[in-house]
Amino acid sequence: MKATVMHAAEDVRIEVVPDAKLEQPTDAVIRVTRACICGSDLWPYKSLDPAEGARIMGHEAIGVVEEIGTDVTRIKTGDLVVMPFAFSDGTCEFCHEGLQTECVHKGFFGNGLEGVGGAQAEALRIPLADGTLYPLPADGDEALMPSLLTLADVMGTGHHAAVAARVAPGKSVAVVGDGAVGLCGVIAAKRLGAEQIIILGRHADRTDLARELGATDVVAERGEEAVEKVRELTGGSGAHSVLECVGLDVSTQTAIEAARPGGAIGRVGVPQDERMPGGETSFFANVTIGGGPAPVRAYIDELLPDILDGTIEPGRVFDRTVGLDDVPEGYRAMNERESLKVMVRP
Amino acid sequence: MKATVMHAAEDVRIEVVPDAKLEQPTDAVIRVTRACICGSDLWPYKSLDPAEGARIMGHEAIGVVEEIGTDVTRIKTGDLVVMPFAFSDGTCEFCHEGLQTECVHKGFFGNGLEGVGGAQAEALRIPLADGTLYPLPADGDEALMPSLLTLADVMGTGHHAAVAARVAPGKSVAVVGDGAVGLCGVIAAKRLGAEQIIILGRHADRTDLARELGATDVVAERGEEAVEKVRELTGGSGAHSVLECVGLDVSTQTAIEAARPGGAIGRVGVPQDERMPGGETSFFANVTIGGGPAPVRAYIDELLPDILDGTIEPGRVFDRTVGLDDVPEGYRAMNERESLKVMVRP
Repeated sequence: MKATVMHAAEDVRIEVVPDAKLEQPTDAVIRVTRACICGSDLWPYKSLDPAEGARIMGHEAIGVVEEIGTDVTRIKTGDLVVMPFAFSDGTCEFCHEGLQTECVHKGFFGNGLEGVGGAQAEALRIPLADGTLYPLPADGDEALMPSLLTLADVMGTGHHAAVAARVAPGKSVAVVGDGAVGLCGVIAAKRLGAEQIIILGRHADRTDLARELGATDVVAERGEEAVEKVRELTGGSGAHSVLECVGLDVSTQTAIEAARPGGAIGRVGVPQDERMPGGETSFFANVTIGGGPAPVRAYIDELLPDILDGTIEPGRVFDRTVGLDDVPEGYRAMNERESLKVMVRP
Repeated sequence: MKATVMHAAEDVRIEVVPDAKLEQPTDAVIRVTRACICGSDLWPYKSLDPAEGARIMGHEAIGVVEEIGTDVTRIKTGDLVVMPFAFSDGTCEFCHEGLQTECVHKGFFGNGLEGVGGAQAEALRIPLADGTLYPLPADGDEALMPSLLTLADVMGTGHHAAVAARVAPGKSVAVVGDGAVGLCGVIAAKRLGAEQIIILGRHADRTDLARELGATDVVAERGEEAVEKVRELTGGSGAHSVLECVGLDVSTQTAIEAARPGGAIGRVGVPQDERMPGGETSFFANVTIGGGPAPVRAYIDELLPDILDGTIEPGRVFDRTVGLDDVPEGYRAMNERESLKVMVRP
């Protein structure tokens, strides 16, 4: 079968790899009908050393179940399913708590050539299929596919940021970052009843889309100037909730300083260092810092109905669709910010 | 009147200073009947440069109201009151939210020779008396005074750590630090229904007291060994709630690593640096970090009844009582860890 293999920074190739097949009785194999390129895929695209090893890319997919292992009972051949970026057994204490990204048997897609594959491919082996896959009730409605695909990562991640930042009706919210996750954070904040949603970003096409999705204000400034602007817009004190959707030190510091005393930060941008900015600032203002890898599997129950009835349209973050052979071009376009988020139709 | 004046590190003197008197119509003056020395007073005791300026020390008191300004309506002359470590107007949005340490008119006692005084003195001016002071219903019951005094800071601070760390019935709790705040954290965790309370500390007399106050386990190890021990004691995953009651980098890192994935840290130890440890560790484990200066004024309503009926006895953290003239000796004893916490009876 064909799959997307990254060999090194800026070296992404479509190659023939061994067919995905059942390895464990708890596995399923899906034929991928939709996948996408994630902002986090751009980290290795910028920096992967060949010595780290080539990898099949992709951790977000919708697909059709082609085969199931003998122990799989909840998922059936022919099911249309969404595949979260992490697999999980669905039975451990963390899964029961809705923190599937901490499942005692957890693992992540798109990390190597051996073992678990990636979603930017014709097919994919799914470990722990009963716990991992979520059958979609939609009968293949094409128009809904982009939004349903975001349940695999980006919409669930934006929602996680909003939950960690304690977004609630009537609150002021600042979203740091105008990438696909930030835009989904805007959608999540609006969905949770925020009164004011300020997006911090400098790409007019993205902040324009943010306004359509629910942002009430745009702050194009950075650093201290951005903090001042958020304070002005929120009556002087800062935002109740701040969604950190970038992960850099500078954006994290901005997020913490832009929060109202007693407010909360929801971090979903992957931090770049063990030492975090804002330790004293957050302490003296009683600002809470939460978040991490989103347990998107847990959020599908809540988010899916709103996608099915059109209340939210997170699929609008996709602005380009490519076939499998054009995935390398999709990486280039996202990396050069020609594209916000690329969908793949293998 | 006599007051405790710190001139420099290890230079604490009892001196005659101008009498406390009303300056604003919202002020009151109290005669101090009980005060104490705080662990945080030991920071300047270790390091105060004379160039920083001398200061009247003390920010925790019980006293009797001697005078009130013309705008004071809720507090009466003769009231027995507890004085939280921060003053607050009681009317702003932050006060209404129970975050009096962020009051728009907030200030802190014990910071200078001019302006607001300190509580290790015969008397003290209280700004914003209506919002700041809490009248005690106790009719001066001597036996309750030590516990009531802890409402000014240390018990409210331990409670804040527990609230920020989301302590709840059935949860496992780790308390980092065996000082007076840590011990009050143990009391708070037990009061909030924690099933397991692990105290991390190396002073046997203090950890023995912690056991009497509700700790179920003691970890005398430090750093990575302490983290391993907490994991062992909690079935492998770490504690649901961790109370950070020290503020050093090493204790903060330990706190974050000792938390269960999805758990929460309540920080009340004052951090020593803007860059905080554990940024990646907390992110990848979805550990939430909260806390800050405790709004102890907000917690008196909840904690006072339990002190009055003897459910909690935070006054047990005091192991020495001195008169005003012996306050310098009290500083020495606390600094050399001869004493856990010193009460002052001016």
